[in-house]
Amino acid sequence: MRMYDLIQKKRNGGILLPEEIHYMIQGYMTEEIPDYQMSAMLMAIYFQGMNEEETLNLTLEMAKSGDLLDLSSIEGIKVDKHSTGGVGDKTTLVLAPMVAAAGIPIAKMSGRGLGHTGGTIDKLESFPGFTTSLPEETFIHNVNSIKLAISGQTANLAPADKKLYALRDVTATVDQKSLIAASIMSKKLASGADAIVLDVKTGSGAFMKTKEEAVALAKTMVCIGNRAGRKTTAVISDMDQPLGYAVGNALEVKEAIETLKGNGPKDLTRLCIVLGSHMLFNAKAVDSLEKGEELMQQTLTEGIALKKLAELVHAQGGNEQAVYDTSLLPSAAIQEPVYASLDGCIEKIYTDEVGAASLLLGCGRTTKDSTIDLSAGLILHKKTGDSVKKGDIIAVLHGNDTSKIAAAKDRLLKAFILGRRASGTFPLIRGVVTE
Amino acid sequence: MRMYDLIQKKRNGGILLPEEIHYMIQGYMTEEIPDYQMSAMLMAIYFQGMNEEETLNLTLEMAKSGDLLDLSSIEGIKVDKHSTGGVGDKTTLVLAPMVAAAGIPIAKMSGRGLGHTGGTIDKLESFPGFTTSLPEETFIHNVNSIKLAISGQTANLAPADKKLYALRDVTATVDQKSLIAASIMSKKLASGADAIVLDVKTGSGAFMKTKEEAVALAKTMVCIGNRAGRKTTAVISDMDQPLGYAVGNALEVKEAIETLKGNGPKDLTRLCIVLGSHMLFNAKAVDSLEKGEELMQQTLTEGIALKKLAELVHAQGGNEQAVYDTSLLPSAAIQEPVYASLDGCIEKIYTDEVGAASLLLGCGRTTKDSTIDLSAGLILHKKTGDSVKKGDIIAVLHGNDTSKIAAAKDRLLKAFILGRRASGTFPLIRGVVTE
Repeated sequence: MRMYDLIQKKRNGGILLPEEIHYMIQGYMTEEIPDYQMSAMLMAIYFQGMNEEETLNLTLEMAKSGDLLDLSSIEGIKVDKHSTGGVGDKTTLVLAPMVAAAGIPIAKMSGRGLGHTGGTIDKLESFPGFTTSLPEETFIHNVNSIKLAISGQTANLAPADKKLYALRDVTATVDQKSLIAASIMSKKLASGADAIVLDVKTGSGAFMKTKEEAVALAKTMVCIGNRAGRKTTAVISDMDQPLGYAVGNALEVKEAIETLKGNGPKDLTRLCIVLGSHMLFNAKAVDSLEKGEELMQQTLTEGIALKKLAELVHAQGGNEQAVYDTSLLPSAAIQEPVYASLDGCIEKIYTDEVGAASLLLGCGRTTKDSTIDLSAGLILHKKTGDSVKKGDIIAVLHGNDTSKIAAAKDRLLKAFILGRRASGTFPLIRGVVTE
Repeated sequence: MRMYDLIQKKRNGGILLPEEIHYMIQGYMTEEIPDYQMSAMLMAIYFQGMNEEETLNLTLEMAKSGDLLDLSSIEGIKVDKHSTGGVGDKTTLVLAPMVAAAGIPIAKMSGRGLGHTGGTIDKLESFPGFTTSLPEETFIHNVNSIKLAISGQTANLAPADKKLYALRDVTATVDQKSLIAASIMSKKLASGADAIVLDVKTGSGAFMKTKEEAVALAKTMVCIGNRAGRKTTAVISDMDQPLGYAVGNALEVKEAIETLKGNGPKDLTRLCIVLGSHMLFNAKAVDSLEKGEELMQQTLTEGIALKKLAELVHAQGGNEQAVYDTSLLPSAAIQEPVYASLDGCIEKIYTDEVGAASLLLGCGRTTKDSTIDLSAGLILHKKTGDSVKKGDIIAVLHGNDTSKIAAAKDRLLKAFILGRRASGTFPLIRGVVTE
C-alpha cells in the first residue's frame, strides 16, 4: 500500500477502506508517512469529505493509536460528557458534581486547550492546591470512592489525534465535519466511558455558527459513538450569547458554585439539568428524561451537588473551604465597569468578540506555553434582549493590568450591538440528536 | 504575511495576490514555509484552480527563483521549443537541426526526465562521446558559431519548479492545469528565448488524454508566454498512437537521421515541418506559415539539416560519423519479433502501454538514479488502421535481456487492439493556439 495512491483516491472522490485508514494512521504515527503527504490527504478530505464508515474507521484508528483507558474496575455505567466549547461554558464544573451526586460514576478526562478562557482543568486550578494530574490508580480509586474524578488527559490518549490536530491547525484543515468528529470522538472512545452525552454549541460564540452545521456535526458524532457501542446523545445548545454571566476562570468557578447553591443563571442551570438528565438516562439510572430532570434538580435543592464539588476539591488536594468561601479563590486587583453609550436595548452580542476581550484580559492561552491569569475575566450585566439606559453598567472587567483592561474594554464595546428594538433570542436547547 | 492565511484563502476559493505568490515561493525556497504547508496549498489549488493572473505570477516567481539565462550575446531572435511528451517523440532531434539550418539560433536546454524513454539529452548521448553538460560560455559560443546547442538544464534553472515538482509528485497534485503550465513555462522563461513554440500532445500516449484538456493547457501556457513578452504558439498534435515507428533512445536517433535524410515517417516529418514553420514565423524569419513550411522542407531536401546535426554532434564532442553510419550507434544484442495472433486490423493502440513496454525493456528511468539502456526499444511495423494477417510482424523488440524482453512482449501485445473493422485515426495536427 502506498500513501500516494490513497491521496489520489480520496482526491478523486473515492472511499478509503478500513485497511487503508489503518495503514494511513499507523504509518503516520511511525513517521513512515511524512507530514507533507498527510496534509495533502487532509486537504483532499476537506474537499471530498468522508462517509459514515470512513469517519468511524478513522475515529477507531485514532482512538487505538494510544492507551485505551480501562474503567472496568469502576462499578456501574460510566457516562462521559463533552462540550464543543463556547464563551462562559463552565458546564462541567456544575454538571459533573450533579451527576456524581445522583450516584453515577464520572471519570472525566479534560483538556486544557487553547481558547478565550482555559479548559475545565484550568478552571479547577482556581482552587488553591488542586491537582489535575492524577495517576491512573488514584483516578480510578477516587471515582470508586466519591463517584467523581476530573483529570488532565494523559499524554498517550489518542496521540494520533494530537499529531493530526497539530498538522490541521497549520494547514487550514481544521473545519471539516468528519475530522472534527473523529478528533473529539477518538478521545471519548479512548477514555473508556460506556455512554456519552455531547453538548454541541451553535451561534456566534461557537465553532458551528449555524444550527444546521451543529446538527450535522452532532449526527456524525452520535453515529460514531453508537456504532462503537457507546450509547451517545447530543444536545444542541445555544451559544449565540455567553452562557451565564461570568467569563474567566475563577469568575466562572464562582458562578458555578452559585449555580450549585441554586442561585445560578437560568440558562446555565437549565442546561446542566437537561444534559444531566440525558446522562442519567444513558446510564440507565432513570427510565425517562423527566425523571432525570427531577433528580438533577434535587441534587441542587438538597445541596448534595455542592457538597460533591467540595469532596472533589478535597480528594484532589485542593482547599475545599473555597467552595463555601469564594473569597479564597483568586480575584483581580482592578474592576472596571463598562457603560452603555445610549438608551436602547441589546440587539445582539458578538459572542466570539466577548471571548476575544476575555483573552485580552489574560484569561486564555495564545500559545501552548502562555500563562493564564486565573483571576481575570468579565461579568456581563446585560444580555441579548435586555433594555439599557445610557450610563448603565453592561459589564465589569476584572484584571490586573490597566493597558490590558483598556484593550479589552474597546473590544467588548464592539461586541455589543445596541439598538432601538428588542430582538428575539434563540431557545437554549435547540435540539437533541440520538441517532 | 502567513502561509496559513494563504492556504485558507485558496481553500475558500480566493485569488492569491502577486505579493502573496512571491512570499509563498520565496518562503518555500528559504524553507521558512515547510513542505506540509505547501502540499496543503497544492491540494487546495488542485480543487480551486488559479486564474490567468495567478498562474502568470506563479510562473514568473518560479522562473526567477534561480538563474535567468542571458542570451543577449546571441544575435537574432532566439526561439525555443517544448513538447509535453509522448511515446516515440524524437521531434527535437529532427526539428532543432532543421530550424538552425534555416539560420535561426537554437539555444536549447533540455531535461532528462523520468518516463518510458529518456529525454532529448539521453537520446543524444547515443552518439559516442557526446557531452550534454556545456558550460554557459561554450553553450553561447556554439550557438553563435553553428546556430545550435543542446545542453542539459543547469542545476539552478527554476529551482522552485524542481522543489515543487518533487513535492507534487508524491502528493498526487501533478495533474492540475495551472501547476503544469507554470512548471513548463517557468523553465522556458528562465531559459531566455525570445519566442516559444509548444508541442502539446493529446491522446492515449499523452498526459492530456482529450483534445479539450490539451487545448486548455495550451491556452494557459500561450497566455503566460505572451504576457511575459515572449511570442508563444502552441500546436496541438496527436499522440493517440506513437509518433513514427521507433521507441527507444538509439532507435529514435536512427529514425531521426532517416527523417533528416528525407526518408522518415510521414507523421514525424510533417510535425517537424509544421512546428518549424511556427518557429520561423515567431522568429520573424518568414512572413507566412506557408513560407515557413517551404523553408523547412528545403532543409531536408538540400541535406543541410542533416549536416547541421553532424555539426552539432561534432561541436559537443561526439563522433559525427555516426550521423552517416548509424552502425556506430548503440545496438541491442537481441531482436525479438512480435506477431499478430489473428487476421484483422489495428483498431487502437494503447500508446501509454507501448511506453510501458519500452520501459520494461530498459529504455527509461523508474527512479532518478536508474541507468538507461540506450540500445533497447522497439520498432512498430503496424500502426492504427493498418490491416494485418495472422503471423504478420506487428513490432520488433530490441533488448539485451531475455526476461525483460518477455515481459515487454506481454505488455506490448495488450497495447494493440486487433479488430475486424479498420477504425479512423485523428489528424496529426489537431489545432493551433496563438492566444
